[in-house]
Amino acid sequence: MQPSPDQAPETAADQREVVLERHDDVAVIRLNSPDRLNAATTRNLTDLVAALDACDADDDIRAVVLTGTGRAFCAGADISGGGETFAVDPGQDTGNPPPDTGGLVSLRIFRMTKPIISAINGSAAGVGVTMTLPTDVRIAADHAKFGFVFTRRGLVPEACSTWFLPRIVGISTAVEWTVGGKTILAGEALERGLVRELLPADEVLPRGIEIARELTRGTAPVSAALTRQLMWRMLGAPDPEVAHRAESIGIYTRGASADVRAGVSAFLAKEEPDFPDRASDGLPDLFT
Amino acid sequence: MQPSPDQAPETAADQREVVLERHDDVAVIRLNSPDRLNAATTRNLTDLVAALDACDADDDIRAVVLTGTGRAFCAGADISGGGETFAVDPGQDTGNPPPDTGGLVSLRIFRMTKPIISAINGSAAGVGVTMTLPTDVRIAADHAKFGFVFTRRGLVPEACSTWFLPRIVGISTAVEWTVGGKTILAGEALERGLVRELLPADEVLPRGIEIARELTRGTAPVSAALTRQLMWRMLGAPDPEVAHRAESIGIYTRGASADVRAGVSAFLAKEEPDFPDRASDGLPDLFT
Amino acid sequence: MQPSPDQAPETAADQREVVLERHDDVAVIRLNSPDRLNAATTRNLTDLVAALDACDADDDIRAVVLTGTGRAFCAGADISGGGETFAVDPGQDTGNPPPDTGGLVSLRIFRMTKPIISAINGSAAGVGVTMTLPTDVRIAADHAKFGFVFTRRGLVPEACSTWFLPRIVGISTAVEWTVGGKTILAGEALERGLVRELLPADEVLPRGIEIARELTRGTAPVSAALTRQLMWRMLGAPDPEVAHRAESIGIYTRGASADVRAGVSAFLAKEEPDFPDRASDGLPDLFT
Repeated sequence: MQPSPDQAPETAADQREVVLERHDDVAVIRLNSPDRLNAATTRNLTDLVAALDACDADDDIRAVVLTGTGRAFCAGADISGGGETFAVDPGQDTGNPPPDTGGLVSLRIFRMTKPIISAINGSAAGVGVTMTLPTDVRIAADHAKFGFVFTRRGLVPEACSTWFLPRIVGISTAVEWTVGGKTILAGEALERGLVRELLPADEVLPRGIEIARELTRGTAPVSAALTRQLMWRMLGAPDPEVAHRAESIGIYTRGASADVRAGVSAFLAKEEPDFPDRASDGLPDLFT
Repeated sequence: MQPSPDQAPETAADQREVVLERHDDVAVIRLNSPDRLNAATTRNLTDLVAALDACDADDDIRAVVLTGTGRAFCAGADISGGGETFAVDPGQDTGNPPPDTGGLVSLRIFRMTKPIISAINGSAAGVGVTMTLPTDVRIAADHAKFGFVFTRRGLVPEACSTWFLPRIVGISTAVEWTVGGKTILAGEALERGLVRELLPADEVLPRGIEIARELTRGTAPVSAALTRQLMWRMLGAPDPEVAHRAESIGIYTRGASADVRAGVSAFLAKEEPDFPDRASDGLPDLFT
Repeated sequence: MQPSPDQAPETAADQREVVLERHDDVAVIRLNSPDRLNAATTRNLTDLVAALDACDADDDIRAVVLTGTGRAFCAGADISGGGETFAVDPGQDTGNPPPDTGGLVSLRIFRMTKPIISAINGSAAGVGVTMTLPTDVRIAADHAKFGFVFTRRGLVPEACSTWFLPRIVGISTAVEWTVGGKTILAGEALERGLVRELLPADEVLPRGIEIARELTRGTAPVSAALTRQLMWRMLGAPDPEVAHRAESIGIYTRGASADVRAGVSAFLAKEEPDFPDRASDGLPDLFT
């Protein structure tokens, strides 16, 4: 039985700020504080990382969709505490910068072994948009706005966005949006390549789940996990020889696997393959 | 009072080869040797670096527009001296390659703490086009031609263009234009992403100043400076963890700043922020 | 005399799996096993590397076009041997991964000193498409399909494609195609930037040869060689200072060359330059 994605948030009892739902082999992680526009706190970002961990550890999950409850996706950091929101508590200030919490989310997404799709159901500001940058595909509601507002608050961009954003939209647009503290409309986000599709808000999550299925159907889970990691890791590698070494390990280990025997045999027999290997049995280290 | 950008070049007394003008908080740097199509020499490129230094050091300047006087933007290296133009004077030849002068300009632009827009008023060849690559936005006259002519003169591309160009227009176009020694029309430059907008020649500088204002209005100068440096530096960084470290320092130092208190308070009060911090008071080092 | 490209494959006697043809100063390398859709084997990939070596060593060749005989470009690895195709022979298994053969091809193309154009005359799957990624320009038949099918066989992408593909089509499309094991139609390949032009199948090779000529006409061979290497090498370099050092060596060595004297003099005289330097006399090392 596949639950309707529209019903889950109406489960009155659910008070959790991050909800993990299952739609067959697709997990939906939902930011679930609609009364404050799913604004980010240390608590819900930590819960988000835990949900990502759970998805990566579960062989029955093939892909993840990240979305939000209500009319916004994520309004950014919760600044209801005022101008001290971003200051480290003096009692805890060691003089060493603590790790940016948004960055911990982005690095966790970067390291995922499963495809992850951002189904951006409404506006996204600050960390609300930057944490989607390491996801593989972004689709959005056609009314969504995207606020790269850091320089308007006296801050700087975070969640590793200074690494991801220029690689996604180009350096010129990345500087324009972030240095300029721009809030952009969905149409511009589509045109510049931040999002791939725009849809009516209530179609965003179903379409996200559909894309997740298209990205996993008929593929070997271990191959998919290694491939996602290779692509994202090589995005920053200094030369193709780094890829050559990692891929050579990949071809060597996968080439002798039960999966490749199943995959090639099924192809030659014009049948659907049934891949026996599981990511939880351990992935070869391609990056030694 | 805001001087009309069209009047400045008619100031007959101005014999300087690089002119620095002020339009409120936007500086216009003008290559000003129209009788030789603003061709580049060691002298005017050195003056250009000095003008960029002056802009970066002045808190009253928020952004820079780079343009040229007359019908051309910059015809490239002045080769009126003939075939020996690029040879190091034998008396000064140590056997060690001296630094490429165009590269010194590009590295200075790369390190700018303020947005810089190229308002390309006419054709740009050689270093005339390559030195614009580290600027944040390029707009151009609709009659402009762009000459990546190095291989037609027996040279190689310079001004760090072999690093910047493939990141702006993609490796395929970068190889085609430079290996092929191509001169391209404005329309192709727009289509391939070298420039963002085409305009009639006399509208290029006013539009450049307008973009400069859009990129600075309502933002904190220190945040903008750090953000520009983060984006350009991270464009080459090997992985997002480098960004995570730099951004964590940025969030830590900015999070305790007077700017962030002003920015968040103003946002909550729905007022325009007034940011007290100045870049000349020193920027935190994010890249230790 | 210029042989018609359509006649060569009909030379009945030619049984070689990789054929090197000459069209004046353009070399055409043809995968030539049409009865098995030019499927890749260790043998023909090794022959391909040898053909690339020959082209790079011959001053009379200015550019290379890579194509295939028959209706396909390359069907990928020859898997007629079944599920053991990718397993290392137990008698030869040292426990160390042997280098991926496709990667050896890609690295050889990456290091070419001459422009290389993929004239993709028909469908390309697996290594058939990934080995084209380090070529400078890809054009394709409008009926061609491109299969990034690795995860459907239990494998991972190879031929350094995890490094090249995200730099060509962007990380989002690269993950979608490879993790998803997609086979895409020519129209999507054009839209996402994998290929530059689509043509009827019989026009692909002639157009590839035409592009090769456009990329070499009027340019200095040594300058073109250094420029191609600079562009591809700098694509992964960590910062523009690496380019500055390499280009400074390039400008220094080329600036004193016979080529630059010929090139500048010809330009000033409005004549066609005649460049005397030859790549076979040795290229300066820009990357020390």
